[in-house]
This record gives sequence, structure tokens and C-alpha cells, in this order.
Amino acid sequence: MATQSVLTPQADDFPRWYQDVVAKAEMADNGPVRGTMVIRPYGWAIWERMQAAMDERIKGAGAQNAYFPLFIPLSYFQREAEHVEGFSPELAIVTHAGGEELAEPIVVRPTSETVIGEYMAKWVQSYRDLPLLLNQWSNVVRWELRPRLFLRSSEFLWQEGHTAHASYDDANAYANKIHLEVYNDFLENVLAAPTYLGIKPASERFAGAINSITAEGMMRDGKALQMATTHELGQNFARAFDIYFQSEAGQAELCHTTSWGASTRMVGGLIMLHGDDQGLVVPPRLAPIQAVVIAVRDEPEVNDACEKVAASLKSAGVRVQVDRGRGSFGRRVTDWEIKGVPLRVEVGPRDLKEGVVTLVRRDNADKAAFSLDAVASVALDLLDVIQSAMFEGAKQRLADATSDVLTIDEALEATETGFARLKWSAVGESGEATLKARAVTVRCLQRPDGSMPANDREAELDCIVAKSY
Amino acid sequence: MATQSVLTPQADDFPRWYQDVVAKAEMADNGPVRGTMVIRPYGWAIWERMQAAMDERIKGAGAQNAYFPLFIPLSYFQREAEHVEGFSPELAIVTHAGGEELAEPIVVRPTSETVIGEYMAKWVQSYRDLPLLLNQWSNVVRWELRPRLFLRSSEFLWQEGHTAHASYDDANAYANKIHLEVYNDFLENVLAAPTYLGIKPASERFAGAINSITAEGMMRDGKALQMATTHELGQNFARAFDIYFQSEAGQAELCHTTSWGASTRMVGGLIMLHGDDQGLVVPPRLAPIQAVVIAVRDEPEVNDACEKVAASLKSAGVRVQVDRGRGSFGRRVTDWEIKGVPLRVEVGPRDLKEGVVTLVRRDNADKAAFSLDAVASVALDLLDVIQSAMFEGAKQRLADATSDVLTIDEALEATETGFARLKWSAVGESGEATLKARAVTVRCLQRPDGSMPANDREAELDCIVAKSY
Repeated sequence: MATQSVLTPQADDFPRWYQDVVAKAEMADNGPVRGTMVIRPYGWAIWERMQAAMDERIKGAGAQNAYFPLFIPLSYFQREAEHVEGFSPELAIVTHAGGEELAEPIVVRPTSETVIGEYMAKWVQSYRDLPLLLNQWSNVVRWELRPRLFLRSSEFLWQEGHTAHASYDDANAYANKIHLEVYNDFLENVLAAPTYLGIKPASERFAGAINSITAEGMMRDGKALQMATTHELGQNFARAFDIYFQSEAGQAELCHTTSWGASTRMVGGLIMLHGDDQGLVVPPRLAPIQAVVIAVRDEPEVNDACEKVAASLKSAGVRVQVDRGRGSFGRRVTDWEIKGVPLRVEVGPRDLKEGVVTLVRRDNADKAAFSLDAVASVALDLLDVIQSAMFEGAKQRLADATSDVLTIDEALEATETGFARLKWSAVGESGEATLKARAVTVRCLQRPDGSMPANDREAELDCIVAKSY
Repeated sequence: MATQSVLTPQADDFPRWYQDVVAKAEMADNGPVRGTMVIRPYGWAIWERMQAAMDERIKGAGAQNAYFPLFIPLSYFQREAEHVEGFSPELAIVTHAGGEELAEPIVVRPTSETVIGEYMAKWVQSYRDLPLLLNQWSNVVRWELRPRLFLRSSEFLWQEGHTAHASYDDANAYANKIHLEVYNDFLENVLAAPTYLGIKPASERFAGAINSITAEGMMRDGKALQMATTHELGQNFARAFDIYFQSEAGQAELCHTTSWGASTRMVGGLIMLHGDDQGLVVPPRLAPIQAVVIAVRDEPEVNDACEKVAASLKSAGVRVQVDRGRGSFGRRVTDWEIKGVPLRVEVGPRDLKEGVVTLVRRDNADKAAFSLDAVASVALDLLDVIQSAMFEGAKQRLADATSDVLTIDEALEATETGFARLKWSAVGESGEATLKARAVTVRCLQRPDGSMPANDREAELDCIVAKSY
């Protein structure tokens, strides 16, 4: 029996499927001002767990959290030429405050390199103060003409790391450490998200960077989403903001700085990377609710049994919620599927008489009955199994939908449905323009063995090209 | 031997002492835009722990975190007459974005009642959707003409809770629950901060509220600081934003809403409530660093012993940092005192030969030697002792500096150095004006037994009056 679909099927209209999931899973709403968003409790709970997992790794990499102001003088932006050019079209400007017109317009931060550069210059005196490793969790504003919830919003939330180093090598090593130990570790082990790690071609770099490192995930429609980026800023911002240090030899030298960020965009990535026609699928390590214990019918014995099962799951360390038997069982199952809760524990009167409950996996719909005594330990095992299966499944999809090609034309064909990999030398600047005319971009450059190049001047680089969000 | 003071003594110039502590403890800096602030890693670590402790309690009270936009249409403010009047002078306005002048100016949120009201109206349909209990952690902007770091800044960070209820009684009960179980519990048990709990007189209420509940702490200079407030908004915002619900009887009824907040102001409160002439004093439960293990001299054996002591403290659950012996011991001791770390473990070569180290309490400078084996358990005990001693000490100071008086004149005299308590009937509106002319305000109304009144119409209320921040 085919149940009526609550969501637009992915194959019919992927963007509408995305909108449906965001709305029906109660993740977010459009805000009243163009492009802003209201993140609803379920969406927030997921972001909160993303934050916690990344924050732990950021601290593990030695960076300290701090907070810099939302408001930045417009003049700060003008000090780094590429930076102001890159960000000018997206800025929101405060011209009035406290009932008066301001003498100098204020920018609502789109990113904080400039203001943090100003304070780094103040705090860094000698080589002993380096490296200076800072991070902040904040909101930023980049005006969006074609907003989409989580993916492109005028205001979004993120972390932005900013560091200053005594040498190019140290800055380069730290940028790579952050990208691998913070972002890639989080992506693989929490978000179950395989990506292509590589560097951006010059045309796609952050405004003011000498190198941008990226992690490119593949969404269910074969398009790319940049999950996190790490920028080596060289001495550009140090020069613009006078971030000098006294070296051991007593010389005044310019610092080398980096910046790196991951944002609420990742929530959009979660939806599109793992979601299916039944809705969201949340990896167990990320899930705010790992298991829902659901009463098949609204009977006291059934509801009581649900509470007992939930208590045993909770004491085993599972994040659990009970859905007592009010309202249609089928409708409630559908709602939990849309929310992507990894494991469903169904408790019905007939099963209860036999001392069993039914466990249903969200990722593949497998279901089986287990005795009440065994539920907690089985659930713990299954959550691990689901986490691995989701990662392996996504890896397989990424590999299957990446085509090795030789020419721009073949790349254009392959990127109708997935990614293409080809020699960077077969693309070049003119190739990039041809691709771009068909909405395809170079997502990253890699060495032929898939590892990260030090810069785009290395010989024999491959590139991954795709349509993207 | 008197050491040269690094900080201005409190008795000489309290505001300068405060500035000195904020700067020398590396808590915060002024931002480049008037009234904004840069919260440095040590200040942020304290705020992060305040957030975690309050967040745990907010979730315990059943509220869910969410996120609403920074930008609010100006028109939203105009819907609640008292609200727009109260906030207009403080608003920051965005007039240009994306390279164009906006059709409608946008307000940078000073608080979110209006935008959250709009969404509550959308989400609340029936009595089954109530109570709706939301909270957000965010930044807000209220333009400040006389800014002071943490105490009054144009941008500050806070949590703002917003709830909707089916009845006045339910809203009133929840407001009181939040004030006692979230704020007062945090203040007493984490911040070691005794306060007077009570309600604001009409003149001091939040713009649009029918009742504002406050917790008023006493700073070291005898002035009051409002540590957290909870507002009953009655049906004012529900009426302005059409927050209706269908009752069990099938009638459309207006909700009763509340809002409640605590902010980075509390960091200022921490400094001024517990600080002394040597700097900050952080209660152990709040302290990001509970113990510093400090090498008296830069010798390998001493530094190694420090690491071992730190490891034993860490495995006992103490948040610990090691200060190896580089640079002047006296200077390093002074720096840790300024930062208010509760416990100092001094490791010197002579003590080490006898197998002992010296523990020094920050709150009262008591010092004693303990054997290396005993350090961890002694430290754990001492941290508890310090936490209690700080709370009891602050309670005693609050009681000692509160005078029972009969008249406005006596109140004016008493508030030169502390708080005054008198009959609310002896003040009244004209009395409030007389007090205000001397910069004294009614901080809260209480019942004679010190408990919280339901509203300001109760007979026989007392009031607490003071100068304030």
C-alpha cells in the first residue's frame, strides 16, 4: 500500500523537496526581513550539537574563544583592497543610531578579519605572543538577493577562527591542522559526510587570501556544497592592519594570518547530503533525539511501557524522547521520519504481551523485534551501525557520481548529474569561463592521489568541477 | 613590605579600579565603534561558563532554544505603543544594504519581543500548543551615550526567554519559576551572589510589561546592579501581534506572554561584587581556571613537579593551568591575583625537598603547606570552602550595608554608602522624584518579610532604594 507522500519527491523537484523538509521537520522559517531566517527549536538543537562538536575540536587545536563587535567602521574595509571589493555588494550599513545620523557609516560585519586584525596588531608585540589563536561564534550579515534557508541567508551564524603566526610555514601548518583535525574530523565522524578536500583556484579564493582550502560535499542532487573553508591570508591583512612582531633577532616583522569558518549552511548540507523522500536523516552522533519511543496506541499499559523503555535507553546514554499514543500512529511515524530520528522504538499492545518491542532504522527502514531487556544494548549497537552505514553510503554515492573525464565537454555532461574530475591543465582560465557559462565551477584542486596540494602552482594537479549551491 | 599597587585602590576611585581590572585581567577592550566591546579570551571563558550554567537551568525549566533574526522591520516596533516609546532613543537603524537604499528601514534588535510575537502568532493555534517556552542566546544593540565595558555597551550579549501561556496564572507562575530556579539559583550557587528579589515600581518597568521581577545585587561601592529581570507582559504583546489560541471550549483567546533576560552585564557584576584591591575574585564554580600551579623558579625539577601536581588536580576534576617559572615570581603571582583564580599552588625548590607545596586562597590570602599526595583532595575541599565563604561574605556585606530607615531624607543619607529599606508608602511618586534628583532609584518592592509581592498594589510593601549602575 503506497502511503500518500507528505513531501515532494526528490526526483520530481529537488529544491521543493528541500523547502518541504525545512518546513515540515520544523527546522526554520523565513524571517520578516528579506533573506533572514528564524531557526526553530529542532533546527537549533541540531546546530547546537554541531557547535559543541566543532567547539571541542577547535579548543583541542589550541584556539581560544573571544568576541569581537558586530559593528565595524566602514573605513576598516577600505584598508585591504581585494577585501573591500569582494564584500562591498553584500554589506548592510547602519547610518543612524541613538536618534542621530552617524558621522561615519557602520558596517554590520560580514566577516571579522578587519576588526580582529586591528586588535591583533595591539596584542602582538613579540614572537613570544605568537601564534595567537582566536575563534568566535557569532552572527554575520551578507545581503542576499536569492536567499534560501540555511544555504544562503542574509544573516547566518558561524564560527570564524583568526590566527597570527611568525612564519609562512607555521601559518600554513596550522591552516592544514584546522582543516583536517577540526573540519574534516567533524565532517567524517559526526556529520558522516565524505568530502573532497582541496584548494580553491585563484578565481574562487576568499577576498584577500593567498590560498583557500575547502571541503566539498555532494548533495543528493549531485551538486556540490562547500562545507567549511580555511584561508591562508599571507601577510595581506597583517600589512593592512600593521600586525608586526619583534622577532628573536630583534627585527620588526609582519605576521602571517589565517581565517577559517563553518556556518549554519552546514545544516542545509546535512539535509541535502543524507535526506531522502521521507525527509531528514540525521546521523546518530549528531542527532539531538537519537531514538523516539512511540506508543502504537493510547493505552495506559503501552504508555507506561514506553516510559520504561525510554528510561532504560536514557540510562544507557541514548538521547531519547517518548511519543505517547495520542493521535494517529501512522501520522506520528511519518512526522518522526521527516525529522530524521535515527531509531524508532515501536511499542504496541500485542508485542508487549510477548515481551518485545520493534526497532526501526531510519536510514534503511530495517525493522526487527527485540526483547524488552535487550532494547538498550541493541539500540546502542544499532546507533553505531547506522552512523557507519550512513558514512559508507555517502562515500559510495560520492564515488559513484564522480566521473573521470578528459575534456571540458565531457565535464559539462558529467556535471548534469554529479561531479567530474579532470586535469587542471585541461581547464585553465578559459576553461573556467566555459564551465561558468553553464553554471559549473571548479570546486577544488587536488593532487592526482586525492591529497591536498600546497598551492595551485604545483604541477600535475587534478580539479573537481560541479554545479554548486 | 608593601608591594606597589598595580590597580587603583577601590577606596580611591572605584570606577578607575573597575577599568583597571577589566584591562589588567585581560577581560575586554573598547571596540572601534562607540560603545562596542571586544571580549578577550579570559572574559569570554567566564561568560561561556555563565552561559552553560544558565542554559542548563533554562532547559531544566522546560524552555527550548531557538534563534530569531538580528534585523527587525521598524514597523514591528510601532505596534506596541509603550515599547516603541521606550526603545526609540536607543535604536540602531540599517538604511542601506546590498548597495541600495532600503524601502523600509531595519532595526538592529534591541530585544526580540516584537519579532518573536509575530512567530508565536503563527505557531500557536490551540491550547494544546501552550505553553510555548522559547529562549535564544544572541547579541542585541542599544545605543549608549555613556558606555562602560560590560555594564553599558552599545552591543551586548544575552539570553532572552519568551513564553506564551493560556492564562495569567500560568504566565505568572512560569515567570516566578524562571526567576527563582534559573536566575536566583545561578546567582546564589554559581556566582555566589546574594541579591534582593522583588518587583519594579511602575516607573522602572520594562517598556510594555505589566510587571517586572528583578534581582538586585550590591557592588563593593554600595551601588546596586540589576543582575537579571523577568517580565510579565500580560496580553499587551499578544494584542499587538495577534497571538490568539483556541481554548478547550473552542473560543479564540489572547495569550499571556513573558520575557526574561540576563546579559554580559553579569560579568561586570562579578567584577564589582567580589573584586578587591588585588583584582578580580572568581567563585570556584564559575572559574574557568580554578587553580593555577605556579613554579617559584624556572628549574626543570620544579617545572616537572608542577606538571605532576596539575595532572593530579586535573584527574580530580579541577580546572587547572600551569605557570612555569619564566620571569619574576612576584609579578606572575600578581597577575594571577588580578585574574582572580581561586586557588594558587606554589611549587618551590625548598618545599619540594620536604615533599610539600603551598596552597594560597585568593579570597582571603590564607596560605598553608600540604604534602604532595594530599594536594588534590585538599584543593577540592578548599574550592568548596571558598565558594561558600564568598557567598556568606557577600551576604554579610549586603546585610551590613542595608539600612532600615523611615524617611526619604534618611534614605538619601544611607544610599551615600549602601542600600536603604523603607515603607513603599513613605515614598510614592513624589518621593521617587526626590530620590531621582539625587540619582537614587527604587530598585525593587518587597513584602516586609523579604518575599516577592504578586504586584505593586499589595498593601504594606517595603522598597529597597539605592544608587545604581
